[in-house]
Amino acid sequence: MLKLVKTTSRKAGLPPGSPVFIGEKVTETFGLDMVDYDTENISLTTPVRLEEFHLLKKKPSNTWIRIHGLHDAQAVDRFCLGFGLHPLTIEDILHTGQRPKIDHYDDYLFLVINLINYNDATREMSMEQISFVLGPSYLLTFHEKDDDIFDDVLARLQTNKGRSRKMGVDYLLYSLLDRVVDNFFSVLEKIGEEVEDLEEELIAEPTPETLQSIHTLKREMILLRKSVWPLREVINGLQRDETAFMGEAIRVYLKDLYDHTIQVLDTVETFRDIISGMIDIYLSSVSNRMNEVMKVLTIFAVIFIPLTFIAGLYGMNFNTSKSPLNMPELNWYFGYPFALSLMAGTAIVMLIYFKKKKWF
Amino acid sequence: MLKLVKTTSRKAGLPPGSPVFIGEKVTETFGLDMVDYDTENISLTTPVRLEEFHLLKKKPSNTWIRIHGLHDAQAVDRFCLGFGLHPLTIEDILHTGQRPKIDHYDDYLFLVINLINYNDATREMSMEQISFVLGPSYLLTFHEKDDDIFDDVLARLQTNKGRSRKMGVDYLLYSLLDRVVDNFFSVLEKIGEEVEDLEEELIAEPTPETLQSIHTLKREMILLRKSVWPLREVINGLQRDETAFMGEAIRVYLKDLYDHTIQVLDTVETFRDIISGMIDIYLSSVSNRMNEVMKVLTIFAVIFIPLTFIAGLYGMNFNTSKSPLNMPELNWYFGYPFALSLMAGTAIVMLIYFKKKKWF
Amino acid sequence: MLKLVKTTSRKAGLPPGSPVFIGEKVTETFGLDMVDYDTENISLTTPVRLEEFHLLKKKPSNTWIRIHGLHDAQAVDRFCLGFGLHPLTIEDILHTGQRPKIDHYDDYLFLVINLINYNDATREMSMEQISFVLGPSYLLTFHEKDDDIFDDVLARLQTNKGRSRKMGVDYLLYSLLDRVVDNFFSVLEKIGEEVEDLEEELIAEPTPETLQSIHTLKREMILLRKSVWPLREVINGLQRDETAFMGEAIRVYLKDLYDHTIQVLDTVETFRDIISGMIDIYLSSVSNRMNEVMKVLTIFAVIFIPLTFIAGLYGMNFNTSKSPLNMPELNWYFGYPFALSLMAGTAIVMLIYFKKKKWF
Amino acid sequence: MLKLVKTTSRKAGLPPGSPVFIGEKVTETFGLDMVDYDTENISLTTPVRLEEFHLLKKKPSNTWIRIHGLHDAQAVDRFCLGFGLHPLTIEDILHTGQRPKIDHYDDYLFLVINLINYNDATREMSMEQISFVLGPSYLLTFHEKDDDIFDDVLARLQTNKGRSRKMGVDYLLYSLLDRVVDNFFSVLEKIGEEVEDLEEELIAEPTPETLQSIHTLKREMILLRKSVWPLREVINGLQRDETAFMGEAIRVYLKDLYDHTIQVLDTVETFRDIISGMIDIYLSSVSNRMNEVMKVLTIFAVIFIPLTFIAGLYGMNFNTSKSPLNMPELNWYFGYPFALSLMAGTAIVMLIYFKKKKWF
Amino acid sequence: MLKLVKTTSRKAGLPPGSPVFIGEKVTETFGLDMVDYDTENISLTTPVRLEEFHLLKKKPSNTWIRIHGLHDAQAVDRFCLGFGLHPLTIEDILHTGQRPKIDHYDDYLFLVINLINYNDATREMSMEQISFVLGPSYLLTFHEKDDDIFDDVLARLQTNKGRSRKMGVDYLLYSLLDRVVDNFFSVLEKIGEEVEDLEEELIAEPTPETLQSIHTLKREMILLRKSVWPLREVINGLQRDETAFMGEAIRVYLKDLYDHTIQVLDTVETFRDIISGMIDIYLSSVSNRMNEVMKVLTIFAVIFIPLTFIAGLYGMNFNTSKSPLNMPELNWYFGYPFALSLMAGTAIVMLIYFKKKKWF
Repeated sequence: MLKLVKTTSRKAGLPPGSPVFIGEKVTETFGLDMVDYDTENISLTTPVRLEEFHLLKKKPSNTWIRIHGLHDAQAVDRFCLGFGLHPLTIEDILHTGQRPKIDHYDDYLFLVINLINYNDATREMSMEQISFVLGPSYLLTFHEKDDDIFDDVLARLQTNKGRSRKMGVDYLLYSLLDRVVDNFFSVLEKIGEEVEDLEEELIAEPTPETLQSIHTLKREMILLRKSVWPLREVINGLQRDETAFMGEAIRVYLKDLYDHTIQVLDTVETFRDIISGMIDIYLSSVSNRMNEVMKVLTIFAVIFIPLTFIAGLYGMNFNTSKSPLNMPELNWYFGYPFALSLMAGTAIVMLIYFKKKKWF
Repeated sequence: MLKLVKTTSRKAGLPPGSPVFIGEKVTETFGLDMVDYDTENISLTTPVRLEEFHLLKKKPSNTWIRIHGLHDAQAVDRFCLGFGLHPLTIEDILHTGQRPKIDHYDDYLFLVINLINYNDATREMSMEQISFVLGPSYLLTFHEKDDDIFDDVLARLQTNKGRSRKMGVDYLLYSLLDRVVDNFFSVLEKIGEEVEDLEEELIAEPTPETLQSIHTLKREMILLRKSVWPLREVINGLQRDETAFMGEAIRVYLKDLYDHTIQVLDTVETFRDIISGMIDIYLSSVSNRMNEVMKVLTIFAVIFIPLTFIAGLYGMNFNTSKSPLNMPELNWYFGYPFALSLMAGTAIVMLIYFKKKKWF
Repeated sequence: MLKLVKTTSRKAGLPPGSPVFIGEKVTETFGLDMVDYDTENISLTTPVRLEEFHLLKKKPSNTWIRIHGLHDAQAVDRFCLGFGLHPLTIEDILHTGQRPKIDHYDDYLFLVINLINYNDATREMSMEQISFVLGPSYLLTFHEKDDDIFDDVLARLQTNKGRSRKMGVDYLLYSLLDRVVDNFFSVLEKIGEEVEDLEEELIAEPTPETLQSIHTLKREMILLRKSVWPLREVINGLQRDETAFMGEAIRVYLKDLYDHTIQVLDTVETFRDIISGMIDIYLSSVSNRMNEVMKVLTIFAVIFIPLTFIAGLYGMNFNTSKSPLNMPELNWYFGYPFALSLMAGTAIVMLIYFKKKKWF
Repeated sequence: MLKLVKTTSRKAGLPPGSPVFIGEKVTETFGLDMVDYDTENISLTTPVRLEEFHLLKKKPSNTWIRIHGLHDAQAVDRFCLGFGLHPLTIEDILHTGQRPKIDHYDDYLFLVINLINYNDATREMSMEQISFVLGPSYLLTFHEKDDDIFDDVLARLQTNKGRSRKMGVDYLLYSLLDRVVDNFFSVLEKIGEEVEDLEEELIAEPTPETLQSIHTLKREMILLRKSVWPLREVINGLQRDETAFMGEAIRVYLKDLYDHTIQVLDTVETFRDIISGMIDIYLSSVSNRMNEVMKVLTIFAVIFIPLTFIAGLYGMNFNTSKSPLNMPELNWYFGYPFALSLMAGTAIVMLIYFKKKKWF
Repeated sequence: MLKLVKTTSRKAGLPPGSPVFIGEKVTETFGLDMVDYDTENISLTTPVRLEEFHLLKKKPSNTWIRIHGLHDAQAVDRFCLGFGLHPLTIEDILHTGQRPKIDHYDDYLFLVINLINYNDATREMSMEQISFVLGPSYLLTFHEKDDDIFDDVLARLQTNKGRSRKMGVDYLLYSLLDRVVDNFFSVLEKIGEEVEDLEEELIAEPTPETLQSIHTLKREMILLRKSVWPLREVINGLQRDETAFMGEAIRVYLKDLYDHTIQVLDTVETFRDIISGMIDIYLSSVSNRMNEVMKVLTIFAVIFIPLTFIAGLYGMNFNTSKSPLNMPELNWYFGYPFALSLMAGTAIVMLIYFKKKKWF
């Protein structure tokens, strides 16, 4: 299950801007690869020395550097300081579990977003923080793990399909964010299937496990929502950005991306409403079942209680020889048939009563 | 039932603006018809070659082209590119299940809305996306299916009734949107009837199926709301539009249309409130019934339990001959009548007690 | 009960602005009366020919025309067109069940509001749409029925009490709206009494009918709210109106009217909160009663079950002559008193247990 | 209990601005006292003739007039008209039960607020409307009853403590409002104690009366909130006031007062949340108790039902002499001990089962 | 448990700005220590005479004075007046339990915030008010108790690590606020652990104590939220501050702090949602258990009731010698086996019925 809060106690008491990694300890080594491209050429390398980055900053071509393995806080800190990032930026990169946000610095735009992954096998969601640093001609992306979410964007760059090579790093940033939003749609689609499975289960035969699943789903929606609401603000912030980092030509794309984010949000809210309704259905089906159990008990009890009473009556040991008033029925010729008929009659009257009450 | 999310996984990983159709696969072929009209003349044709459209763009007359069969993504893409539409517009047209929205492009206005159809027989709603492209003298409408929703608007154009021929394509767009909003009213009217039927059923005799119907209705309202809220924004966006596509003369009509949309929204919200109240009524009627069942059980049990005990008492086999203390009642002359009177008395006391408690 | 939606299907498919009456068919004939007044004189007539109205428009005196009987759509349409009203205005006048709104036209202000009537006998609310058209020196009011809501305003005009004759038609409009808002207060006062009656009933002895009444009330509040919220916007719109129809001197009155509308809204919201609380009280009183029923059942069952068991025990037919171990109690001298004491002892222990548990 | 709506029907149909007293009929006579003060002197008198007030208006000293006994509408009306108040102001003063509000007139500021009193003995709240009229050098306060809420402010004025004599009537108004807000804190403190008492009662031993108390509290919070929300707007309105009535030096005090009002609001909202939670606790404790009752019943029934069956079995009268198969146990030497052991065994198995289920 | 309202009645009736301490009476003596620092030097002293402070005000170095022991209202009042603080500021410092707020005075900025402490042992939260007064080169912090929350900030100042000594008192204020917000994260982390413990308990074996814990948690979230919402406004107010107290260089830090506060708020809201869901899970698990109890009762009753009836039937004493119709079964050779088979058959049929109903 998704953790509610990341362990932040390691940080409390340290000065603001301390480069401490906060997140799950995954033994992933620090690594990076760099893509340098313009309309004509594209190269994919893994530079080692810091000076190479400084040279790139001055080149007119576009550069995209993917950094993964935030676990190694020292390495990330050294790289970022070398790149001239603000200490607060570095803190936010390393302190994963951030709320998505956009920060404007003089030299660059800084974005944090959450990527949600859905594991088909375990039906569980996991969350990863991805940070973006957009400079005039470079884009840095920081990943917790060496994931493959942006591989197809890279493939498009390499095969020079679409507009990607013709436009700048702002379009690249847009493409990556579009990929992230598309990923939300995929997750929602799978959750939608789960919701529909659960709805069928609810109607067919709800069990306490169904309720458990509904609550897990509800909790996932709470956490999903917590990622998408601020993402909307981030993309809106990009749209309204008045610095030079996002070109004018990119506006129409951002508007489209914003609309898609709203649609994700809308779907999340719809799911929340539907899941709330499912809890109601579950609870009322539990009541209905209880009602049915009660009815069966009541029908049996109410039919047999008078019969047992009659049987008990004629089981009394009053001495018939002492008085003609003492249980003369016992000595009647038709005594037993009379008692049986009395019982049958009582039972039939009861059954008619229940039929009229529509209890079965 | 309405699907919660459209299958979007086909699209994830493709570059933004890819012309892939997303929606239910309906084997409907691509087709279009074109209406060209001015105050004097009107013609209805089905052009084949793309050049014809280009000519039309330059003509002073008004042109309305209805395209249906979005399933054939290649054909739609070719047509739209030929018309000069932006790739993102084409993606939004083909990717049905969009949230209603309005986009301003340099050459045209782009609108997406959802049309809700209500099937009287199955009492089910279905949703269709309709996209509008409004240029200076042309209007394109894209339909998933070859529906007849706009046929009466066309008929009015042909018979030259009302203002429609005298005014431009902006008035035509208004007329079509007005038709869509009127359609919402029709759907709401039918849902209103369903709500009233359910309310009567609730008072007369609620069953678990009643609850199921209430929940289906609730879910439909959630999805209806999801279509109407953004529609409101779209029409508001049209009203506040400062480009030249919507003429000044059309403002008063758009205000009226906006008011009607607000009224639709109001009614949707009212229905949601009323449906929530119905769930409460249902649940409390279930409790009431349970209460009644419990009372019947309790009355029977509480009356007969003491009687059965008395019968059991005189069914004991204590040896009356061994001691005068052993069940002398069995040998009394009025023993049996005494026992019966004791029982009757107990029962009467109980009945009086329940009467006082107002249990029946 | 108030209808949720008016039958609008008669209209779907007609061109915008069609003069079709939508509302309950009441066989009320079209009629109008006209009041013409200035500081000095007042006349009350029923004009027949349309030209008379045109003359009035040019007169410096103030004219108030009351039209009722909207059922006769043709007559209303003819009158309104003669007066120079926009087709959309006429559609809104005839299409009753509108959401309250204000529209600014070049020549006049158009207002729609809902009047709520409360029938003391049946304790039911009914709704009527009243439309206002305010021109420079005339005011038209359109009523569904020939109601008497504005009769006292007319009486004040005739007796020349207060400021009414000294001021223009804008003050007249204000007086009429003030009358409508006062009417809301009267309705709320009656509903307040109903709420207090129900609260007493809830504490004294709630029945399923009480719940039914609460839900009817709740539903009425939903619909009342639907009329008052937009009324607030309408009056706010009047206040912020920058056209010349509402004079400067009227501002302070409109502010006061606005405050009263807010107070109506506040009271409606308070009632909603209180009514929600009443449902909770009802449900918990139902639970409490169920609890009590269960306790009675349990006390009886738990006391008599062991007693009946003991009686059953000594009703067994083991052959005492075959073995001294077989039920020797039956032959004891104090056998029967022993059994009775055992029973009484058991019962007393049970009663002490329940007393300790505070079950009675 | 607080009335939900004041009786307003006396007013409906009267012209706007009619001086009719609306409120509970308390037989309190009209009265007033006047405080005239400047830095040097202070005098407390009860003027009789209206001309005296006119003279005061022109004096440079500050004047505070306290009017009570609104019941006598004619007297209040005469006084107010003499003072030059607008008819709408007089209507608002007399029509108690107003929503707190601020109105700007040319000559004065008009404020209405609600004072909440909490009766310690009956634990009930009552509400009183206080109206303020602030002119350039005078302040009028209108009270329904001759209450003593402002007596300590007057005492401070007389003893010349603090800033009160050095500053104008705007500071006096602030002091009075501060007193009213402090009064809200006192009421909230008492309600807080009640809430804590109820919380303890809930944990110790909740009864239906506890629920009744919670609901009374909830209702009081609804009405309290209805008084405080608009008060916040009123004080905000004073702060943003651009007329000359509130001096610049008073701004910092109003900001502080505003903060306190927000704090009152916050506390009211917190109480509402806590009270809602208490209803949940109550309901779940009722369920828990029901559960316990059910368990006791079930344990007894399930243990004794099989035992009684066994006793009944050996109470059958099959003729053992006709066949060796007919109940041979009855003639066994260890027949009775066998039956008793069978019963004890059954009971022990049941008890172990319940122990395992953790039912006791 | 956290108190809902502080005792304010001591204050009601006093003039605004009275220096009365409102809070829990803790016998803590008034004390202060002073830190004076610039880039080069730092000194930590405990000044005694008031004149020393006046000198410091004029020195170019930065001064931070920590005051604790607000219980001694006279001492605090004397100190603050000596420092030139406004009486309203002093009142707010002493009147603990304030809502967090920011006030702009001519000479200084005044901030109030709430610090939440979480006691690991008792799992209880406590709240302390900390007030800040920020002047051009000095910062005063007022603590209720002599807590150690800011000790590590002081340690950083002393060891001259990070930016703290190079920047002004505005950065110091930021560092302290950052420490407070980090403290909220620590508290939330611990609450998150509690939530996860409770979730496991809920699934494993919920008891009424679990519900009690959930409600305590819910109440704590209500009060936590009450502290964090206004904190957000305070920090936003600092960000938008246009006076010279907060330097331009500090903006980027405040933005970061603001983002963290939003994240705290987000987490609080998420916890509230999750805790609400837990109450639902608890209640439905209680229903489920009740259901199970009912089923066990019903199964036993419904199986044994018919068996007991059969046993009772053959326990009747009809005289077999008087008529061949009177209970001939008693004299059959296979009478007893027949009765036992009848009973076994009935029981088996019942068991099959329950199996089919899936009751066990």
